[in-house]
Amino acid sequence: MPLKLTILGSGSAVPNLQRGVSAHYLNINERRILIDCGEGTQLQLRRFKLKFQRLQYIFISHLHGDHYLGLVGLFSSMSLLGRDSKLIIFAPEGLEEIIQLQFKISGVYLNYKIEFVVLAATEKTLIFEDNSIEVYTFPLKHRITTFGFLFQEKTRGKSVNKDKIAEYNLTLPEILKVKKGEDVVRGEAIIKNEILTLPDSKLCSYAYCSDTKFIPELSEIVKNVSLLYHEGTFLTEDKDKAKSTMHSTALEAATIAREANAGQLLIGHFSARYHDTIAHLKEAQHIFQNVRCVEDGDEFVVE
Amino acid sequence: MPLKLTILGSGSAVPNLQRGVSAHYLNINERRILIDCGEGTQLQLRRFKLKFQRLQYIFISHLHGDHYLGLVGLFSSMSLLGRDSKLIIFAPEGLEEIIQLQFKISGVYLNYKIEFVVLAATEKTLIFEDNSIEVYTFPLKHRITTFGFLFQEKTRGKSVNKDKIAEYNLTLPEILKVKKGEDVVRGEAIIKNEILTLPDSKLCSYAYCSDTKFIPELSEIVKNVSLLYHEGTFLTEDKDKAKSTMHSTALEAATIAREANAGQLLIGHFSARYHDTIAHLKEAQHIFQNVRCVEDGDEFVVE
Repeated sequence: MPLKLTILGSGSAVPNLQRGVSAHYLNINERRILIDCGEGTQLQLRRFKLKFQRLQYIFISHLHGDHYLGLVGLFSSMSLLGRDSKLIIFAPEGLEEIIQLQFKISGVYLNYKIEFVVLAATEKTLIFEDNSIEVYTFPLKHRITTFGFLFQEKTRGKSVNKDKIAEYNLTLPEILKVKKGEDVVRGEAIIKNEILTLPDSKLCSYAYCSDTKFIPELSEIVKNVSLLYHEGTFLTEDKDKAKSTMHSTALEAATIAREANAGQLLIGHFSARYHDTIAHLKEAQHIFQNVRCVEDGDEFVVE
Repeated sequence: MPLKLTILGSGSAVPNLQRGVSAHYLNINERRILIDCGEGTQLQLRRFKLKFQRLQYIFISHLHGDHYLGLVGLFSSMSLLGRDSKLIIFAPEGLEEIIQLQFKISGVYLNYKIEFVVLAATEKTLIFEDNSIEVYTFPLKHRITTFGFLFQEKTRGKSVNKDKIAEYNLTLPEILKVKKGEDVVRGEAIIKNEILTLPDSKLCSYAYCSDTKFIPELSEIVKNVSLLYHEGTFLTEDKDKAKSTMHSTALEAATIAREANAGQLLIGHFSARYHDTIAHLKEAQHIFQNVRCVEDGDEFVVE
């Protein structure tokens, strides 16, 4: 399972008993990642049976309370429950100051190290990679400095077709060449690489775009993403409200998904003014079919 | 109903799905008061159907996260939902700095005013009164500066016994004198005040003592309190842990209740190490009978 996403909070601004505030839990190639962490996120992790001690990285999009207020409580709980491994936090300028001030006044010392990485990109920028995944950030447009994130698998090596090893009686040095994408040359004869390897499976990716007004160029930044989360706080009938608060409508989210050729679109961050999301879904499906309006606890797997 | 208390969170340090962290909601003579405000308190207020816009005063005992981290979210929600009336917060030094830094970085402006009153008492001190209630604070002993609170009704005026008005044919000026506690003088005859008035009903009071190690002198400070909340984080078998973390045992809480001649004792702030509170109750009842180990949502009324 290369990618599994769990929605921890699907509401905006004011939490209620049906919808928590923004937080997504992502497992991509066994990297455990938290994206945003509104108040109550540690309880949502418990509710949906996700082990928060296994979290390795946290990405915070912006410093509105509904996206970060759960951090201090989560950090404290991790320490009290015995965490000793490092946690790396990617966030806009200011978060470390907020956290450190509270720990100083509370007299709290954590049993593990937190490394803060300050986000400051003005265009799509690689901010993390290891041997399996890459993470890019890109600026969104909201009332304060805000970033989106793109998480993607790195190119996998070529997989050699085992049937062909026998058929062509491939030697070990030949197999290693095939894995690197090379052809096998035997005197005059050339056995093409594509004959000996399995077709590439599509690499999985997840993009998180919240909070933001509609940015048409976003579709290029997240082109061909497998799973796209884009906020759709409002309906088109409330587009004045979307404009004044620098949020998007469900229709705008769907427009980004269509132009980006996304595999699936997830819409969330719903304003508490709406009792359900039926109208959001209808509005989005006018122009992009594979869309879901998310609820707390929803899980999405990309194979 | 002069006094009604609702327990919003009965756990300590690390919240879970059974117990939220510290917060009590007190209605004393129609003054709506929040005492402590751990992460998730705004959701607990919703869960137990308490209108948080009616809150007038908040008292914060100390600045460990499980007692104050819910404030910024609560303040923001109040503003987004239209609050315009002032809120008064009594808290130790440092809270205003924590709150203001977050609002500054988030670019948040509230639609109402918050007045911060810094607690600094070194002995039992009156910190608030109006025509109906008085609030005292007193120092507790914990790892950081911590305060307890005593909320009590003020002395009510004398209630004239209506039967006696007819029996003695009291005039209006005489009735007014009786209400002030005076006797009625008619020539040589004196009709004593206590004959004309109803006996005093006991004044209601509520004391909140969390977090703290055992302080024997506390029983004098909360003498004769109607309802006493005293933390009992640990059992006596874990008294070393209580000592090292500067918390109390259930037995110590009960000792304060007995020496104070409290009407009822409530124990809470249970360590997550215990699966239930049966042993806490048994331990406390050895020396004080009228005790309850509280759960989230419990309500206590003093008539």
